[in-house]
Amino acid sequence: MSEQIGITVSKKENFSEWYTQVVLKAELADYAPVKGLIVLRPDGYSIWESIKDSLDKKFKKIGIRNGFLPVLIPESLLGKEKEHFSGFNPEVFWVTHSGDTEVGDRLALRPTSETLAYSLYSKWIKSWRDLPLKINFWNTALRAEIKSTKPFIRTSEFLWQEGHTVHATKEEAEAEVLEILETYKKTVEDELAIPVLVGKKSEKEKFVGAIYTTTMEAMMPDGKALQMGTSHFLGQNFSKPFEVKFSDKDNIENFVWQTSWGVSWRLIGAMIMVHGDDKGLVLPPKVAPIQVVIVPIYYTEEDEKKVLEKAGEVENILAKQGLRVHVDKRNQLTPGFKFHDWELRGIPLRVELGPKDIAKQKVVLVKRHSRQKIDVTLDKLENEIVSVLDTIQKELFKSAKKMLSQMTQKVSDYEQFKSKIEEGGFFEAPWCGNQKCEEKIKEETGADIRVIPFDSKNPDGKCVYCKSKSVSNVVLARGY
Amino acid sequence: MSEQIGITVSKKENFSEWYTQVVLKAELADYAPVKGLIVLRPDGYSIWESIKDSLDKKFKKIGIRNGFLPVLIPESLLGKEKEHFSGFNPEVFWVTHSGDTEVGDRLALRPTSETLAYSLYSKWIKSWRDLPLKINFWNTALRAEIKSTKPFIRTSEFLWQEGHTVHATKEEAEAEVLEILETYKKTVEDELAIPVLVGKKSEKEKFVGAIYTTTMEAMMPDGKALQMGTSHFLGQNFSKPFEVKFSDKDNIENFVWQTSWGVSWRLIGAMIMVHGDDKGLVLPPKVAPIQVVIVPIYYTEEDEKKVLEKAGEVENILAKQGLRVHVDKRNQLTPGFKFHDWELRGIPLRVELGPKDIAKQKVVLVKRHSRQKIDVTLDKLENEIVSVLDTIQKELFKSAKKMLSQMTQKVSDYEQFKSKIEEGGFFEAPWCGNQKCEEKIKEETGADIRVIPFDSKNPDGKCVYCKSKSVSNVVLARGY
Repeated sequence: MSEQIGITVSKKENFSEWYTQVVLKAELADYAPVKGLIVLRPDGYSIWESIKDSLDKKFKKIGIRNGFLPVLIPESLLGKEKEHFSGFNPEVFWVTHSGDTEVGDRLALRPTSETLAYSLYSKWIKSWRDLPLKINFWNTALRAEIKSTKPFIRTSEFLWQEGHTVHATKEEAEAEVLEILETYKKTVEDELAIPVLVGKKSEKEKFVGAIYTTTMEAMMPDGKALQMGTSHFLGQNFSKPFEVKFSDKDNIENFVWQTSWGVSWRLIGAMIMVHGDDKGLVLPPKVAPIQVVIVPIYYTEEDEKKVLEKAGEVENILAKQGLRVHVDKRNQLTPGFKFHDWELRGIPLRVELGPKDIAKQKVVLVKRHSRQKIDVTLDKLENEIVSVLDTIQKELFKSAKKMLSQMTQKVSDYEQFKSKIEEGGFFEAPWCGNQKCEEKIKEETGADIRVIPFDSKNPDGKCVYCKSKSVSNVVLARGY
Repeated sequence: MSEQIGITVSKKENFSEWYTQVVLKAELADYAPVKGLIVLRPDGYSIWESIKDSLDKKFKKIGIRNGFLPVLIPESLLGKEKEHFSGFNPEVFWVTHSGDTEVGDRLALRPTSETLAYSLYSKWIKSWRDLPLKINFWNTALRAEIKSTKPFIRTSEFLWQEGHTVHATKEEAEAEVLEILETYKKTVEDELAIPVLVGKKSEKEKFVGAIYTTTMEAMMPDGKALQMGTSHFLGQNFSKPFEVKFSDKDNIENFVWQTSWGVSWRLIGAMIMVHGDDKGLVLPPKVAPIQVVIVPIYYTEEDEKKVLEKAGEVENILAKQGLRVHVDKRNQLTPGFKFHDWELRGIPLRVELGPKDIAKQKVVLVKRHSRQKIDVTLDKLENEIVSVLDTIQKELFKSAKKMLSQMTQKVSDYEQFKSKIEEGGFFEAPWCGNQKCEEKIKEETGADIRVIPFDSKNPDGKCVYCKSKSVSNVVLARGY
């Protein structure tokens, strides 16, 4: 039985199969009946709730409020910004009937809401007083995936948030783009313990309809990059076709300046990949549905009573600290089985408590990620536990940073790059700015320009592909 | 300008038009481009967030966790419980294409998720250890409305929560049905200040697929009843076709017992109808996006500085109490204009603050719903303000209860009922339990059995329609 329950492949040897097993066996998600769709089980959704709460608080602090948009967008509206539409068109789910009645204008299931939001913004915004307008939407987006799907990483419906802000000036809009990117980076690094690179996307890789796209990118242990979130400067690309205009203080009409930005449950996928190990999931304490699991150890009825009572006391102490704590009281299961079970589920800290511990007025703490054991006397537990969880969070980030640095290297020679790219990782290389070179690199190596880091100008280098004068250093990698 | 902004019809004279104007002009919602769909603007969504937070905390306390289900359900799965399917079929939106490709099995947009959830539950549940399983989903449901639509009350997509619980015994499932109904009632009465009647629906009115449906019903000021939420006992009606089974402690396989339940943003519609007045929205403090608005009053630049400074101080005092407070610093707008604007938006308490008030070290509080003015000295404000908001919440509930009682009457004579039903309201009447009588009443008066109150057995009365022996008293009304 325990063979079926545990992870049966190693992360190193079969990363893709390992990932799927962790997702399913830690009961984060399951497949829905429609191919390419998944459902979230309570532990998976709880992680999303933690990410959401953390972001939502930060959004509200900077004046962003939430709204709701329906999932159905008329084809005529979706098609209003041509370039944008042609980018999404092949992936759109179309509603053609309600009951037995054919609908006139076909209805798209929201692939993203720029068109719908901005058709409304054009009604809501009249004067400079109405600006800035900053609304975020916690919803799902639907894009029929033709490539092979993977839970959290690539699914035809995904949980995300999409923010849409409107400003009177270009400068203010561009500042917003960066403030959001910074908010994302902080959340991912602080809560999920994943370090990211930030910067701009190339023209080829930007959001269809944007002036430019800023991005944060992370490196997965299999050597592939993962786009973790994007924040777009839309300029007036949408305000013109959608006629989003405002009268300024001198009563002169102007088109507004806009931004849009989003992160999705893909962040959960990244967290699994970066921190998980051969025993299963490893959760950073800040997003763990349960932060501390108490496993009572007893073999006689007499001990059972005593141990469970003490476990209850410890639970209360920890709950009072605001910790998410759980006592595993299941009987007929051995302590060993329980240890494996909670390791599979990635609970950051285990408290072992048996008759001998009680005699010594102590408990044993076991860190999930490092298996490090710490004896703590009961009188010190209250103060100790928060600091241990804090240390775990930091250790996870530190180890992810180490991995990132080990998997990042500089290259200037194309042949060298071609051979090294097979091992995966990020490659920092000079680029001439020419999309032809970018396309050739992609064609010949499968690598994209993932991100052009801010302040990466390099007028003195030579393009890694064509050897002509470079413009800046870019970060290349194969990606998800 | 102010004529266009304010509400132009009276609540009494044209309730329907009044309602729509309040929804739009208080900027809670707006129409989406697809007929029958609305969007929520930030103030509207904020009210939903308050309702959601309050319910979510209560759900979690009783062991209910959240999950996520995709919006797409294959036709074959939706059709598995025949009666259920035929109930929803006419309202289903169908996806037939993704991009240019026709999908095989048509995909329904979730009208409700019983079928999808239970097909998964049958995989997840194996033994008595896995029970009870209690998962809630905060999402939207889609039902193409053919009748005339009304924001919050009847729309083709609506925000709601749907809970789906699974139990080992009938008794436990039935207790869950009632616990949820009680949770709903408490939330609606405490947060939205709307009193409700609770009980069962008749066989005719129950949820398609349920053994029975419990409901909470409220009375709107136009004399029509509104269903505010339902909690269904599903028995084994779904567990059998979906094969949701568990092995009990003796290793014998049994079908599970299930419940499902939901409330939607319809609650916001009820709140608007019950508390609003000719000046616009009236918000109960517990769900108001802004609970206290401070309007600084000044006519000279010298006063402006002084008054704004003091307004800032007052704001800090109130914010420290955890109140949602806002200072209206907009210039070029008169205090009178601001008063009207915040009244339209229903902010429960206004603080007026001018140079004369500062001289006397006091402020003027004005209650939105009663226009009652209260002078409070600044040193007492901190303590006073929370208690004033609490009083407002209670006064709103009290006045709604008074309305409910005035609009509820007992009838035993059918002719009397037929004439009185024209004025609207709830009518308590004996009923024989025969669906024929129920149908005839509906046909002849437009009234439904809204709810059969718990403990309403009446074996001694005579059916209001057929005069044969009654079974229980029921509550009749025309409804939304």
